[in-house]
Amino acid sequence: MESSRRTVLRAAAAGAVGIGVTAGAAEVSAAQGKTGPTIGILLYDRFSILDPTGPAEILSRLPGATVTMIAERRGPVRTDTGDVALLADRSIDEVHRLDVLVVPGGSGKAISQVFERPRVLDWVKRIHERTQWTTSVCTGAFILARIGLLTGLRATTYWSSKPYLEEYGVEYVAERYVRAGKIITAAGVSAGQDMALYLAALMAGEQTAKALQLAVEYDPRPPYDTGSPGKAGPELRELALRLLADSQI
Amino acid sequence: MESSRRTVLRAAAAGAVGIGVTAGAAEVSAAQGKTGPTIGILLYDRFSILDPTGPAEILSRLPGATVTMIAERRGPVRTDTGDVALLADRSIDEVHRLDVLVVPGGSGKAISQVFERPRVLDWVKRIHERTQWTTSVCTGAFILARIGLLTGLRATTYWSSKPYLEEYGVEYVAERYVRAGKIITAAGVSAGQDMALYLAALMAGEQTAKALQLAVEYDPRPPYDTGSPGKAGPELRELALRLLADSQI
Repeated sequence: MESSRRTVLRAAAAGAVGIGVTAGAAEVSAAQGKTGPTIGILLYDRFSILDPTGPAEILSRLPGATVTMIAERRGPVRTDTGDVALLADRSIDEVHRLDVLVVPGGSGKAISQVFERPRVLDWVKRIHERTQWTTSVCTGAFILARIGLLTGLRATTYWSSKPYLEEYGVEYVAERYVRAGKIITAAGVSAGQDMALYLAALMAGEQTAKALQLAVEYDPRPPYDTGSPGKAGPELRELALRLLADSQI
Repeated sequence: MESSRRTVLRAAAAGAVGIGVTAGAAEVSAAQGKTGPTIGILLYDRFSILDPTGPAEILSRLPGATVTMIAERRGPVRTDTGDVALLADRSIDEVHRLDVLVVPGGSGKAISQVFERPRVLDWVKRIHERTQWTTSVCTGAFILARIGLLTGLRATTYWSSKPYLEEYGVEYVAERYVRAGKIITAAGVSAGQDMALYLAALMAGEQTAKALQLAVEYDPRPPYDTGSPGKAGPELRELALRLLADSQI
């Protein structure tokens, strides 16, 4: 079982057909011997590495859950710094239904490039129609906003992107995560972890979510307390945005 | 420049020779037009996805830094749940020198498999001799301990692994990260982010580290406060370990 599951996964990783060219996440899940929620994370060029991987670490521990990285095409998808690539095991054409959709964020260039991909935007819209939960991390909120999913709703995004989100008729809320119906948006980058624990509680109950927090030893103690624009002040805000811009390709 | 850098990276991603079969991280860095620190992260089968990606998100924003994922062989390396694969852009044979080595953690099976790979252990030992900083996250500490790097030192690891680390003559410390000379060990999974900010301060100064905390909007506010074994209590400890075991392939 275990080895057969790994075989399937390695086949998928290698881009081989493995379990049928049009396998949906549910079939992927079944092929993996899992019976829990199917969680799909959308990847696209120049995403930020922690946006999908923070939630993936936590949500992949939900009982029976399957987490699948999905992109317009199968294969490596590179981050905004160009340093790291995550593998998309499925293309959007292969995934027709998900219990949970996670849309991570990326650089400004990344988001504008997704805006030029109608196939990807249509897929998000189509998948959202049948999800239990549709979620975003950081600037991933703009992909939801672009297809009208956030219009008139309370939502959050990366701290410096607030004014742009409001242009979509969204009420920006400065929280780590914001729920509006079945849509949950998270603040910048690292906030995906807080959102994932909240989502874990909604999906599997408080005890499981609390245990998952311990499972990933999430007892944060950063050396500083400058993680929000208010705490950081103008100089650090400017430096943060410059460091980001300089690191992006 | 940007497109040429991307070309190099995509060539590497595709496993093409790109910039010479024995390119070291410094050459990778140069080929990417970067002049800052070379940071290498060791991947191996069944690692935990957040262990390398938390530090990668933060350290890849250091001025001029290059983060390179490295494994015994180039190509996709899959996590302990089998759900996600990160791409190793370089094999250990291609990397001869790093300013910073990050050794992430993984499942118990993952660590015992690394113990059976003398080529990998020798590479870690050889690279460590010339690093500025050698670091680990979670059970990655056992890879450093196995080759004697932690003997007689203070260090930390995943909360439930404490007794095993002490068998290596290591003084376990229940902190998010522990520095002993040029070696820095981090606690479980999510602690790599706290460690990366500490390391960023050592490498680039406090202002840069504080700005990086804002750059990744690391202002943690998990819905619960059960991220350490003491706060969680016995029932959640047992549930956390069961959820982990059940999620691992």
